[in-house]
Amino acid sequence: MVGGGRDAFIGAVHRMAMRLDGKIDLVAGAFSSSPEKSKLSGEDLLLDPSRVYPDYNTMIERERALPVAERIDFVSIVTPNRTHVPVAKAFLEAGFNVVCDKPLAFDLDEALELERTVQKTGKVFALTHNYTGYPMVKEARELVRRGELGDLLKVVVEYPQGWMIDLLEEKGNKGAAWRTDPQQGGASSCVGDIGTHAENLTRYITGLKIDQLCAEFTTFVKGRRLEDDANFLVRFKGGPKGVLYASQISVGEENNINIRVYGTKASLEWHQEEPNDLIVKYPDAPRRTYRRGNSYISEAAKRFTRIPFGHPEAFIEAFANIYLEAARAIDAEVNGQPVPADCDFPTVADGVEGMLFIATAVRSAKAGGVWTSMASEKK
Amino acid sequence: MVGGGRDAFIGAVHRMAMRLDGKIDLVAGAFSSSPEKSKLSGEDLLLDPSRVYPDYNTMIERERALPVAERIDFVSIVTPNRTHVPVAKAFLEAGFNVVCDKPLAFDLDEALELERTVQKTGKVFALTHNYTGYPMVKEARELVRRGELGDLLKVVVEYPQGWMIDLLEEKGNKGAAWRTDPQQGGASSCVGDIGTHAENLTRYITGLKIDQLCAEFTTFVKGRRLEDDANFLVRFKGGPKGVLYASQISVGEENNINIRVYGTKASLEWHQEEPNDLIVKYPDAPRRTYRRGNSYISEAAKRFTRIPFGHPEAFIEAFANIYLEAARAIDAEVNGQPVPADCDFPTVADGVEGMLFIATAVRSAKAGGVWTSMASEKK
Amino acid sequence: MVGGGRDAFIGAVHRMAMRLDGKIDLVAGAFSSSPEKSKLSGEDLLLDPSRVYPDYNTMIERERALPVAERIDFVSIVTPNRTHVPVAKAFLEAGFNVVCDKPLAFDLDEALELERTVQKTGKVFALTHNYTGYPMVKEARELVRRGELGDLLKVVVEYPQGWMIDLLEEKGNKGAAWRTDPQQGGASSCVGDIGTHAENLTRYITGLKIDQLCAEFTTFVKGRRLEDDANFLVRFKGGPKGVLYASQISVGEENNINIRVYGTKASLEWHQEEPNDLIVKYPDAPRRTYRRGNSYISEAAKRFTRIPFGHPEAFIEAFANIYLEAARAIDAEVNGQPVPADCDFPTVADGVEGMLFIATAVRSAKAGGVWTSMASEKK
Amino acid sequence: MVGGGRDAFIGAVHRMAMRLDGKIDLVAGAFSSSPEKSKLSGEDLLLDPSRVYPDYNTMIERERALPVAERIDFVSIVTPNRTHVPVAKAFLEAGFNVVCDKPLAFDLDEALELERTVQKTGKVFALTHNYTGYPMVKEARELVRRGELGDLLKVVVEYPQGWMIDLLEEKGNKGAAWRTDPQQGGASSCVGDIGTHAENLTRYITGLKIDQLCAEFTTFVKGRRLEDDANFLVRFKGGPKGVLYASQISVGEENNINIRVYGTKASLEWHQEEPNDLIVKYPDAPRRTYRRGNSYISEAAKRFTRIPFGHPEAFIEAFANIYLEAARAIDAEVNGQPVPADCDFPTVADGVEGMLFIATAVRSAKAGGVWTSMASEKK
Repeated sequence: MVGGGRDAFIGAVHRMAMRLDGKIDLVAGAFSSSPEKSKLSGEDLLLDPSRVYPDYNTMIERERALPVAERIDFVSIVTPNRTHVPVAKAFLEAGFNVVCDKPLAFDLDEALELERTVQKTGKVFALTHNYTGYPMVKEARELVRRGELGDLLKVVVEYPQGWMIDLLEEKGNKGAAWRTDPQQGGASSCVGDIGTHAENLTRYITGLKIDQLCAEFTTFVKGRRLEDDANFLVRFKGGPKGVLYASQISVGEENNINIRVYGTKASLEWHQEEPNDLIVKYPDAPRRTYRRGNSYISEAAKRFTRIPFGHPEAFIEAFANIYLEAARAIDAEVNGQPVPADCDFPTVADGVEGMLFIATAVRSAKAGGVWTSMASEKK
Repeated sequence: MVGGGRDAFIGAVHRMAMRLDGKIDLVAGAFSSSPEKSKLSGEDLLLDPSRVYPDYNTMIERERALPVAERIDFVSIVTPNRTHVPVAKAFLEAGFNVVCDKPLAFDLDEALELERTVQKTGKVFALTHNYTGYPMVKEARELVRRGELGDLLKVVVEYPQGWMIDLLEEKGNKGAAWRTDPQQGGASSCVGDIGTHAENLTRYITGLKIDQLCAEFTTFVKGRRLEDDANFLVRFKGGPKGVLYASQISVGEENNINIRVYGTKASLEWHQEEPNDLIVKYPDAPRRTYRRGNSYISEAAKRFTRIPFGHPEAFIEAFANIYLEAARAIDAEVNGQPVPADCDFPTVADGVEGMLFIATAVRSAKAGGVWTSMASEKK
Repeated sequence: MVGGGRDAFIGAVHRMAMRLDGKIDLVAGAFSSSPEKSKLSGEDLLLDPSRVYPDYNTMIERERALPVAERIDFVSIVTPNRTHVPVAKAFLEAGFNVVCDKPLAFDLDEALELERTVQKTGKVFALTHNYTGYPMVKEARELVRRGELGDLLKVVVEYPQGWMIDLLEEKGNKGAAWRTDPQQGGASSCVGDIGTHAENLTRYITGLKIDQLCAEFTTFVKGRRLEDDANFLVRFKGGPKGVLYASQISVGEENNINIRVYGTKASLEWHQEEPNDLIVKYPDAPRRTYRRGNSYISEAAKRFTRIPFGHPEAFIEAFANIYLEAARAIDAEVNGQPVPADCDFPTVADGVEGMLFIATAVRSAKAGGVWTSMASEKK
Repeated sequence: MVGGGRDAFIGAVHRMAMRLDGKIDLVAGAFSSSPEKSKLSGEDLLLDPSRVYPDYNTMIERERALPVAERIDFVSIVTPNRTHVPVAKAFLEAGFNVVCDKPLAFDLDEALELERTVQKTGKVFALTHNYTGYPMVKEARELVRRGELGDLLKVVVEYPQGWMIDLLEEKGNKGAAWRTDPQQGGASSCVGDIGTHAENLTRYITGLKIDQLCAEFTTFVKGRRLEDDANFLVRFKGGPKGVLYASQISVGEENNINIRVYGTKASLEWHQEEPNDLIVKYPDAPRRTYRRGNSYISEAAKRFTRIPFGHPEAFIEAFANIYLEAARAIDAEVNGQPVPADCDFPTVADGVEGMLFIATAVRSAKAGGVWTSMASEKK
């Protein structure tokens, strides 16, 4: 692991997700830009001190020096956005597989460069757009794929949070600080942090790609340097329309990402805060609630379930599903096998699409909310 | 009553709303543009045949000929949009008070003309934006007014329906036919029919007025002449932002108007399909669910409740609340008293604001989704 | 109407229920045991003073003296339990049809006597077990009848309220006072007032009759003279089992009557506080939510709906459905026609069954919670 | 680990719960009564083959032979009920700490014997009544403890499942087979398996102990040897009353354990299938929903949370909380420290109480549903 030292929320989540299924062992890491903090974090994690490194370059060098059977099979990158690409490139080029937190990169150029590196090295690269790890999100995708909804017409996807209603970046909150710092988080804060999850979730479930968007960014909290709220109108390729928003000043909301997809025959609805249910509505039949773990759930979703119906699974388990699938691919790669075709995890291409979304959003918003084409951004 | 003959949905609702509290008697009407149908509708309603008229002009003439104590105190207009203003003007100018279904008029010019007529005649004019009749909507307004939410930042208001996913206007559905006919419904179908409720509900609860909007209209059903889906980004006067949409092709949705209002201190949420609850969310305290009929409800909401908590009230009762308040005003007017200051019903000014919203939306949408100022429309 | 004077909750509900559909006019009444209060109540209701009577005997005498076409078609009895039977008998024997509030009688003997009177006079007698007026309760019955649930195994029916957590009967609350006074309310308070609704709702939906019950009565509030909480185990005829409880000291509960019915093939669930939904659960298929007003709803339920889906209906409308059906029967009786076979309202037989339930419950509870047979009570 | 071989549901859950927090390593086991199956299970788990044992006696012997620093710190027992006590006693007497699945024992005598062994050996013994591991269950206990509900009056606790509606024990389902076999599961099936969770959850949250109970057992599925449904009326010590039921034939229910606790000042409600919420209802204030992870949550609950609000935690995390606390105690014991006083996990005393509940229930049910005292059972 690179990053994820003491007090880092997302690093701890990655570690629980890795551990859950007993297939991944954390054996080495460079947990902080401070060598001292990295060392202490390694101690917290009961790691062999010889494999707790002061920085990621040292980690690459020393791990490569180990016999193949002993070195790490992949690295998990959980640093701030700014360093995702340099770290990932270095590991890929040194022959390691990579799991990386989202968003993929600092900007679109970097993302495209990383995509080329992945292609060139042939290594496995997984991006932890964790919400697509939920079984009922996978079920939603299956319902769309098998035509249960008919032709898609409209998507409404929301991601309201409220935790940034205060100027936390000036009150010692590190996560808030780097997210709202254009030098570290990138050109967007709210969209880069959570809007990109909304875009990814939509694309995962529906297969729809954004053609054009109209973005309205607002910075509601005085003194903040980037937007903390963003509303979008969206035109998808092929005709469907969308409403998408992300907000970090929606007081009282916790982590309420949710999606509704409307087709000609039915619609579906999923809420991350009650993730075991998937609601499907029909024009002329009772509403149906699909529930995780039941016999009627598709194989594509069922295999991401660990325990029986009524015993709820939640965020960590969904996150672990990303790792499970990445691990399947990595296991194949390490053993010189082809990556199984049905591996279901977000790739570098998803990350590039996300960065394109962010770049397009920033451009539209800066122009005052002008309809802007996604394609025009990609080089 | 004018309009509301056999099979007309909204006319029947108006009649139930009138009857509920035993303060209004339906005694006369011109129920259809067909004199024969008007007569039969009058029979259905057990009315005195001498007061069932072939058309509204005859109704005005004959009612005026009755002694003051016997003639109607007000007329309820439940015709298609096209005729709201001519009928309302005729009654107002003949000295009758008016309750009128929404939207106010066929277009903005007409609306402004009617506003002048109301001002000139000094009669009571009530517009049945019925969703503001719900007690918990009134409670929401009280919470905003007394600062429970702090300064307002954002509003999300949705009005999805699904009933027009088929081309009903060509299958004998009269309601669908006139709504989608530009000659009868006006320049907008979905926004005129339900989007205007969303705008009105937002303004009622928050007091916010739209400054600029960006509208995306879509006609999803082939052969339809007006939009059946409309998404908006909104900038309110003073800085708050909004997302608003109305849809009649959101399959599986019934009549799901709902609103979320976010402030600096708290947010609130109300769903028309579960109208007895109002949810308030805080950044640092448990969520609260305010429930109709309880001791802690404000007087402003409590007086619109008929039965104790846990005995749910719903759509008809909310509609009746509009009539109750209009009746209070009319009672005063008929008795030569000033209309009580606390009468709480939508007025002609609300209707003008709604028509301005529709006109601005149409202009923005026709321009391809360009931010358009509300003020620029009003003459 | 007899009873229902100023400040009486249930009388006002009856009147709204009568008025809603425009088929019943309140024209006469003896609204209070105080002639003066009866007179004032009549004024409130804008009635012809000549038909506002000081007591029910006078009412009977004078109404009978009117020409047939002018006299009342039926009487609505909304007095405390103590007087239901004497008043009802007097009206029935004088040739009037009767609608009566529940519970039917002061005790079982009285109930049986009234049943004989109804049979002897051949008049219509309707009991306002209003919860069976909800469309989705009727839908539940249809689902059971058509075998959707398979053979029934178990019923859980709950009726918690919390309003009597204080000793209201000594604080001027009249409703609490007569309910808890054995001389006025009968041998049971909580069971007589609301437990009987739970029994009736169960029997209506399932058709099951109680064979034996085990009752635990508790008086939690010091100074109260009758039970304010009652829990039951139930054995139904034919083998199904049940859990039933009623409580008026369940703080924070409003009027939360709800029922779950389990069969071999599926189960259903209905909650009065969200009455437009009916949930059906299957062992191997997604849960279904049936919603009032949709095309897929059975005719038996659909005809009790006034407005489209998504426009919620609630308590008053359900209550009005009892009146609508009673009125259909009364209309037939008054016109010398046979009562239509499909009239769907609670009858005197339902009331007798309810009184038998109360009597059996009291006997079981007094014996310390001994299993007691229903049959043994009926003479 | 003893038990939990291939295909055993609960063994896999225990392993995920152990792993989640990175503080417990599974290093040895006797996973099946079949040595061959034990060996294969050990391979699945990537264990050192030398520590995969053919039976638990061998395991004890060989682990004791290892140097103290290398041997296991505790054993996790996940076998059928029949063998809990013999296995636990053997490990305790050999000096090992024990975590054991519920119910504690085959019968009450055994349970009392085990209690004596635990006392005698001074080892840590934890029982995985996992539902008490949920943070919001702990919050519920805190609310009761600090008097938020006032004096407790009534508890309603339900545990419906539907999975045993078929005669699974004759269709190759091992879990169903041993549960319904009096020789393996004990004198009760449904109550032993899940009723005991309901009793434990009630006691954990409220601190109430059952004084007397009246039990109605039913075997609905033909051919089954023990009850599959059990309804109870309960009298708690000190006056509160209760309704409790457990069912495994409630078709369509999944794992719907839920509890409502009513006091003089407020009531609370928690549902395991939506475990992140805790609802508190007041007579004269809005309902409150307490949500996991928020600042206002008590320390007692907060320390059992891993990730922020809105990122739901669920069954596995709750289960892991039992292990976390047991591990804290075991860590102290192993290091010769006193067990921290605030360790929060179910003990052998809870298990004895549970066995007493089962024994009393069986006695009451066999007598035909007679009120039976808990105390009279304990020797």
